[in-house]
Amino acid sequence: MSTASAAGTLLGVDVGGTKIAAGLVSYDGALLTSVVRPTPAAQGPAAVLDAIAAAVTALPGREAADGLGIGTGGVIDRARGVVLSANDLLPGWAGTRLAEELTARLGLRVAADNDANVFALAEQTYGAGAGCDSALYVSVGTGIGGGLVTGGRLLRGAHWTAGEFGHIAVPEAAGRPCNCGRTGHLEAVSSGPAITARFRELSGETDVHDLRTVASLAEAAEAAGPAGAAGVALAEGAAALGRALAGLVNTFDPERVVVGGGVASVGSPFWEPLTEAFAAELLPGPAAVRPVLAALGPRAAVIGAAALLLERRD
Amino acid sequence: MSTASAAGTLLGVDVGGTKIAAGLVSYDGALLTSVVRPTPAAQGPAAVLDAIAAAVTALPGREAADGLGIGTGGVIDRARGVVLSANDLLPGWAGTRLAEELTARLGLRVAADNDANVFALAEQTYGAGAGCDSALYVSVGTGIGGGLVTGGRLLRGAHWTAGEFGHIAVPEAAGRPCNCGRTGHLEAVSSGPAITARFRELSGETDVHDLRTVASLAEAAEAAGPAGAAGVALAEGAAALGRALAGLVNTFDPERVVVGGGVASVGSPFWEPLTEAFAAELLPGPAAVRPVLAALGPRAAVIGAAALLLERRD
Repeated sequence: MSTASAAGTLLGVDVGGTKIAAGLVSYDGALLTSVVRPTPAAQGPAAVLDAIAAAVTALPGREAADGLGIGTGGVIDRARGVVLSANDLLPGWAGTRLAEELTARLGLRVAADNDANVFALAEQTYGAGAGCDSALYVSVGTGIGGGLVTGGRLLRGAHWTAGEFGHIAVPEAAGRPCNCGRTGHLEAVSSGPAITARFRELSGETDVHDLRTVASLAEAAEAAGPAGAAGVALAEGAAALGRALAGLVNTFDPERVVVGGGVASVGSPFWEPLTEAFAAELLPGPAAVRPVLAALGPRAAVIGAAALLLERRD
Repeated sequence: MSTASAAGTLLGVDVGGTKIAAGLVSYDGALLTSVVRPTPAAQGPAAVLDAIAAAVTALPGREAADGLGIGTGGVIDRARGVVLSANDLLPGWAGTRLAEELTARLGLRVAADNDANVFALAEQTYGAGAGCDSALYVSVGTGIGGGLVTGGRLLRGAHWTAGEFGHIAVPEAAGRPCNCGRTGHLEAVSSGPAITARFRELSGETDVHDLRTVASLAEAAEAAGPAGAAGVALAEGAAALGRALAGLVNTFDPERVVVGGGVASVGSPFWEPLTEAFAAELLPGPAAVRPVLAALGPRAAVIGAAALLLERRD
């Protein structure tokens, strides 16, 4: 990718509960410059909107940008750029008219969507699924989300919630509490916190609350021979995800499956059992499909937000 | 629906392992006339193709029809009208060039697809999902299949296998053998044969091999008070299906969910636990969605085959 494009630039912003990342992105998907600011979440939506505008304004070269895309948590009405619902990380966020408010503050065309959709759009436009007519994108981190592309377009759903892959009942999660308030869902066994909790349960190490620690322990155990509790916890979460993804592939038959997020980047202690469980479940038609790792890493959030402005919407 | 249309007629054929049903269908979806013939499956594909042509030729009024649609078991290349794979019910069926062979025999434009896709297309075009932009169609009978509509069109998938809803791992099927050779899939707990097998297991009645018998027993038990083994077997299969469908709705967020097939037509001993389990699993976005019963019944096979000729394919 080039570091600048004659065709112009776009702005992308990732709004999380703790930080706002804003970037200037070329039309060919290069992140040219970026700034990161804290999110004044406790001060309410107007303060967050002001902070987004300030972060964008601080970007060198932003004057020439053709529009602004926002990715954020919650359910977002993509057509109107309005937050329909959100969680406690952004108090009062539900009801916020992102597009209208930011156009008023910045004088720019604004598009907004859910952060999992933005991840999928980034990988579809510039990353591991570029050029695919159909693909399934899954991001595995604190939660599990993603998006489905059919006919080259990201599916939004009838209520703007398509891509909530975390809330499928899976055998491996039976009885385990899910963030949605129910039990037995994929997110309750394959997300970062679920794997870390399972490690604590298996090992008795009650002080470990970080997946990176579990991953380091698993790599050390792997190097020494049979994997210990860390490896088992990662392998269980990975296998549950692999099997569930294969069920979705049997069902929707996409050309490609892309897995990203912090958990996916752990490496072989997660990726190998994921791929093995996935392959064992496929029907003959899609039998050759294998998951591929997302290409853009954490940059996907800002790049995908900018890519919202390039979507064909009709 | 009117019984005739000034706009002309189409031919639809449902090719199963034991019978061929052919019908003349109006453009508004009315089945005008039909014939049923035995399938000479053991004599091989050429004999089956001849029998299809003979069944069509026997239909009064077929001379004016604008084309012929075929629905059949197996994986079908919808673009070329070729059978890619099939099961033992139609020996040698894989590789059969349905469109080419039947155009040669009948001098008509021919389209062909999988029978589950044809069911979905019938309900999308003329039935319980008519007018929906997005919908999930599931047929529950000897197996479980269906189709997903997005943007008003039936998704075919990258390998022509989209809609294989039966091969998702579900908690309720853990350890139970599936027709695909694996274990633990939805089809292993919610299909007609799976429910009937579960009834035998619960009741010790080893002679019952027909879901209708199980359904009659469940209704009698319901009338008398608490449901017996028949009711439990139906309720278990229904709840597993309801929960799995809700997971798919959480994932793909369709406007509507349509359930058809022989098992769905059993009535309240199946439908009530299905709806209850479904509703309990939905995320807030699609929380108001409820499954609706397919509208066309067994006629969907012939009507949907004819509807293949009306699909916009670009």
